Amino acid sequence: MATAGQVIRCKAAVAWEPGRPLSVVEVEVAPPKAHEVRIKVVATGVCHTDWECLYEARKGTILRRFPLVLGHEAAGIVESVGPGVTTFSPGDKVIPLFLPFCNNCQLCHSSKTNLCKTNWANTQSGVLADGTSRISCNGQQIYQFLGVSSFCQYTVVPETSVTKIRPDAPLDKVCLLGCGVSTGYGAAINAGKVQKDSSCIVFGLGAVGLAAIMGCKACHAKTIIGVDINPEKFEKAKQFGATRCINPRDHSKPIQEVLVEMSNGGVDYALECVGSPAIMSAALDSTTEAGGTCVIAGWTETESINVQVIKLLMGRTLTGTYFGGWKSVKDVPKLVEKYMNKELQLDEFITHNMPLDQINEAFELLKNGKSIRTVISL
Amino acid sequence: MATAGQVIRCKAAVAWEPGRPLSVVEVEVAPPKAHEVRIKVVATGVCHTDWECLYEARKGTILRRFPLVLGHEAAGIVESVGPGVTTFSPGDKVIPLFLPFCNNCQLCHSSKTNLCKTNWANTQSGVLADGTSRISCNGQQIYQFLGVSSFCQYTVVPETSVTKIRPDAPLDKVCLLGCGVSTGYGAAINAGKVQKDSSCIVFGLGAVGLAAIMGCKACHAKTIIGVDINPEKFEKAKQFGATRCINPRDHSKPIQEVLVEMSNGGVDYALECVGSPAIMSAALDSTTEAGGTCVIAGWTETESINVQVIKLLMGRTLTGTYFGGWKSVKDVPKLVEKYMNKELQLDEFITHNMPLDQINEAFELLKNGKSIRTVISL
Repeated sequence: MATAGQVIRCKAAVAWEPGRPLSVVEVEVAPPKAHEVRIKVVATGVCHTDWECLYEARKGTILRRFPLVLGHEAAGIVESVGPGVTTFSPGDKVIPLFLPFCNNCQLCHSSKTNLCKTNWANTQSGVLADGTSRISCNGQQIYQFLGVSSFCQYTVVPETSVTKIRPDAPLDKVCLLGCGVSTGYGAAINAGKVQKDSSCIVFGLGAVGLAAIMGCKACHAKTIIGVDINPEKFEKAKQFGATRCINPRDHSKPIQEVLVEMSNGGVDYALECVGSPAIMSAALDSTTEAGGTCVIAGWTETESINVQVIKLLMGRTLTGTYFGGWKSVKDVPKLVEKYMNKELQLDEFITHNMPLDQINEAFELLKNGKSIRTVISL
Repeated sequence: MATAGQVIRCKAAVAWEPGRPLSVVEVEVAPPKAHEVRIKVVATGVCHTDWECLYEARKGTILRRFPLVLGHEAAGIVESVGPGVTTFSPGDKVIPLFLPFCNNCQLCHSSKTNLCKTNWANTQSGVLADGTSRISCNGQQIYQFLGVSSFCQYTVVPETSVTKIRPDAPLDKVCLLGCGVSTGYGAAINAGKVQKDSSCIVFGLGAVGLAAIMGCKACHAKTIIGVDINPEKFEKAKQFGATRCINPRDHSKPIQEVLVEMSNGGVDYALECVGSPAIMSAALDSTTEAGGTCVIAGWTETESINVQVIKLLMGRTLTGTYFGGWKSVKDVPKLVEKYMNKELQLDEFITHNMPLDQINEAFELLKNGKSIRTVISL
C-alpha cells in the first residue's frame, strides 16, 4: 500500500491518565519494525478490562503506564509488514491477539497450556520487542495496551500476536473473538471440560458469562443457571442457552446456599465470569463436593481468595483460564470458522455499534450494565 | 463362632480425653446390629490423624466426642455379622473403611467422585446407624472413630464400610491400605492424574508422601522431588522413587523459589502431603503456571489457604483428594491385589511393629518423626 514504510497519521482514543475519559486525538503510527505487522483496525469491541484499567487501576488490576491506547478485542486488515515477516501480506484479514503463540517454544508445544511468553514482559508493560511503542502523539510516546491498542485506526503488533482469518469473515463481528467470547466459551470447553448432561452455573452475564453459557450448551450440559444482579441480562442469557436465571437480590440467603439447595447439593461446574473474589468463593461453594469444578474466567490481577481446604479435600477442583485456554494464533481462526458455520453465536453479543468518537459513551453503557458489547468502527 | 451374638470383652486403647495418653483397658464390644459386621482386628496402622485428633484437636481438626477409641487403618477377620448382612461371613479377611461405598447411591454411581455419604453424619460423630456405639467400658459408651475404631481387638462397622480381601493377604501389611498408602498413592494417580515424563514434587515424606512418590513413579513421572525438613526420610523416599530430595532448612530462600528455579519455572504436579496451609501455598507456587496441578492430600478439617487469583487464571489447577479418590469397597481389594503381585510396596512403610500395650510409644515415634508406620498387633 502507499502508506507502507511511512508514518501514518490517524485517530486514536488516548487515555492520558487513569480515571479520566479518553480523548480522541490524532496520533502517529510508525511503520512496523522487524517481525511486526501494521494493521488497519476496522472494528474493536469494548471490554470490561479496558474500562477497569482506566477507571479501576490498582483496584483489581495493576497500574499500567500512561498515556496509553487501550483496546484489545479487534479485527482488521494488514496494511504492511516489517522485515522478516513471511506469513502475512497487506490485505490479509486478521485478529490481533494479546496472547501470543510463537509455535516455537516449549509452551506452544505443550498440550497443557495455551500460554506463550514471547515478548511477554514488553507487551505487558506497554511496548513492543525493542522496548518502545509504535504510537506517538506530537512526539510523545503512547504506550500500547497488551501489545494491541485497538482504540486506534492503525496499530503495530508482533507477528506472533496476530492471526489470519478467512477473507469473508465480517470484521465487525469476529473482533469479539479477540477476547471476551473466546474467554468465556473456552472456560467451559477447555478449562472446565464440561460434560454432557451435567449441571452448570455461570456467575455474571456479561459477554464472558454469556459466552460461557454458550460453551456449556455446546458441551450439552443439562442445566445451565445464569446468575446476575441485573435481571435485564436474563432474556439474552436464555437465548444463549441458560435454562434458568437467578438474581441474588431476590433472595435473603447467600446465593451459594440458594444454588446448593436448588441443585440438590451443588452443581458439577461453576464458572465465575465477574472477577470478584466474593463471587469466586460463592462459585466454589455452589459446586458439589462430589467432584465439582469451579473455573475462574473473570479477570483480576491483584486479588486473592480464601479457600477452606476441606472444600478441596473432598474432591473439588478450582482452576482458572486465560483466553479460554485457546492457543491463540492456531485456534482463533477455527472459532471464526465455527461462527461462519453458525455453530457459534457472535451477533447476539453486540448490543451497540458506535464510531470511535463515542468511545466514552460506550464505556458509560458498559459501566451501567446497559450493553453487552459495543463494537466501535474505526 | 462361639462368640456370635455375645458381648465380647477385649482390650482397647481408650482416649478418655483430648491431650492425654491412651489407656489400654478392657472394654465390651456388643454384637453387630442389622447391616453391621463385627471384626476381630488383627493389625492396625497408627496414622497421623489419630494422633492429631487426640493431641491437636481444635488446631487442624474438629474436636471429636470423647471417650473415644481411635484407629482407622486396619485389617481383620469377620467374627460375626448382624441381620441382613449377606456379603460377609465369619472368617472373611477384611479391611474396615472410614469412607463407605454403598454401591446404591448417586455418588457411588458417579465417575467423578469416590464419596459416599451412607451413615456419614453418624460415623463422623462417633456412632453407628442407630446413633450409638458398639463399644463400652463398664457400661459407659465409648465413641467410635469414623465408624472404625481399630485400636480395639474387636470392632463393629456398617457393612458398607468394610471390604473383603483375598484370604492369603497378610493383614499386618495390607492394613496400611485402609488409609495412608491408599491416600497418597491415589493422590498421584486419581487426583493428579500424573502424566508420563512429567515433573513432580511431593511435600512431606511421611506415609502419605512416600505413597504419593510411589504413585508418581507408577505414572512414570520423569522427575520426583521429595521435600521434608527431616533428612532422615530421604533414603526411604529414594527407595520409593524420588529422584532427588530437598530440605527447606538447607536454603535461605523460601522453598518454592528454590523449587521453581530448580525446575525451570515450576513443576507439572505438586502434591501436598502434610496438611499445612503454608505448605499448600508453597506447593501451588512450585507448580508451573503453564498448566501445573497442585493436589492437596494432607489433612486439615478447619484451616484455609489464601490463593492469589492470578496464579489460577494463568491456568493452574488446585484440587484435593479424600482417600486418594478410590471407591473404597470396590478399589481397596484391587490395591491388595497389586501388593500381592508386587506392583505396590507396603512392607517398606513399616518401620516398627508393636503390641497394643505400646500404642503410646507408637505415638511418640510418630510425633518425633522416628517412624513412618508402626503396625500394632492386637
